[in-house]
Amino acid sequence: MVNILLHLSYDGTNYSGFQIQENAPTVQEAVERALRIIYKQPVRITGAGRTDAGVHALGQTASFKAPFNIEKEKLPSAINTLLPPDIVVTGAEVVNNHFHARYDARRKIYSYSIDRAPYPQVLKRLYCWHLPDRLDLEVMSKAAALFEGNHDFKLFQVSGSGVMDTKRSLFKVKLENRIEEQLLIITFEGSGFLYRMVRLITGSLVRAGLGKLSLTAINEAIKGNDPSAAGPTAPAAGLCLGKIFYH
Amino acid sequence: MVNILLHLSYDGTNYSGFQIQENAPTVQEAVERALRIIYKQPVRITGAGRTDAGVHALGQTASFKAPFNIEKEKLPSAINTLLPPDIVVTGAEVVNNHFHARYDARRKIYSYSIDRAPYPQVLKRLYCWHLPDRLDLEVMSKAAALFEGNHDFKLFQVSGSGVMDTKRSLFKVKLENRIEEQLLIITFEGSGFLYRMVRLITGSLVRAGLGKLSLTAINEAIKGNDPSAAGPTAPAAGLCLGKIFYH
Repeated sequence: MVNILLHLSYDGTNYSGFQIQENAPTVQEAVERALRIIYKQPVRITGAGRTDAGVHALGQTASFKAPFNIEKEKLPSAINTLLPPDIVVTGAEVVNNHFHARYDARRKIYSYSIDRAPYPQVLKRLYCWHLPDRLDLEVMSKAAALFEGNHDFKLFQVSGSGVMDTKRSLFKVKLENRIEEQLLIITFEGSGFLYRMVRLITGSLVRAGLGKLSLTAINEAIKGNDPSAAGPTAPAAGLCLGKIFYH
Repeated sequence: MVNILLHLSYDGTNYSGFQIQENAPTVQEAVERALRIIYKQPVRITGAGRTDAGVHALGQTASFKAPFNIEKEKLPSAINTLLPPDIVVTGAEVVNNHFHARYDARRKIYSYSIDRAPYPQVLKRLYCWHLPDRLDLEVMSKAAALFEGNHDFKLFQVSGSGVMDTKRSLFKVKLENRIEEQLLIITFEGSGFLYRMVRLITGSLVRAGLGKLSLTAINEAIKGNDPSAAGPTAPAAGLCLGKIFYH
């Protein structure tokens, strides 16, 4: 058995998320179907980030125990020919047998894209939240800074995800205003993320930018005191898992 | 009757082109269906550029005689609510009654996008030609310059389009290598374009970049002497109608 780490990108539009489930198309299912053809036996993969329905990924990773070795230079193309065009393997590497794609991840980057054009930019519509309203970016940047650091993000998750420890470290929450492209990109870099955490924080940031939420209220939400300041959940289409870092 | 000029953008992936035809979805049909609901009678639009199946547009224009006036600030949103999300009206203006969207166009810009990443960039796959092979951009730039100016582009069209005069002016053919995005964008600016002209020129440029076509052969094709140096037709997905200029 060889432990393989795949680097995966996908357009999440037509998937019910990464993780396999019954009666719904998932990225995991599509990749496992391709691997089963290559290795002529069932292969189970473990993804690093369980992206939700409609969420995209450029730097997802997933590991699996390969029954036999295939040159890592040839493996991505071999898998890609068996995958639908909205999932693309961009790399493969051999990792040690104890490596676990999720537990060994040390840092993750997500990005959230907001289309600020008056009318939706049609070629970006599947990858953005269209929000033509005036946004106070200065206020949003200040709000973003409040989220940086070690916090108990229990109000910035969808309950019922079963996670006990809701403390996470956010190393960076940065806004990038790409004026020419009429895009606002919010980048989140952290040790790990709770279920829907990025989209709930984005929802709070946008409400602050619209002048509908004060920095004080956001601070109270971060302290765990004011649930009304958390969210709403920003649309899935704007979210993209950018990169997973290991040691 | 009011003569209205619409500014249109669309993702051409799911359309058999701009121009209406039987038993196939077209952009014109979708827009006319929306206008019919708004004006409560059939409305015929005239597009400036008849983009082909799978070709996109950010700056298409189309004019029509409106039975009655609707504020031009409100018209785009009114139409957009009736359009599928892959077609977006981005503006409307009142033009004089003799204005013709196609005949009055003086200059058009098309762009062709090539994805040079080793594996397809999944979120750009619908808007690019994926071409991971090594390209000699210097040779391609020299080849591009050969196309600039007034030429008889009879070899750079698909025959049977019924056009008699095949002379056109190409003001600019420019390559832009966006290294970070791993994209090569070729921009074509001209007085007008023959059927499939941009995609055939792109095909020749790429062959030159791959070292499979000499500048001399391209020159002979531009002179009308060497049909074997024209094309092949580059894939539709990479092409986008950027802008139409009037007086």
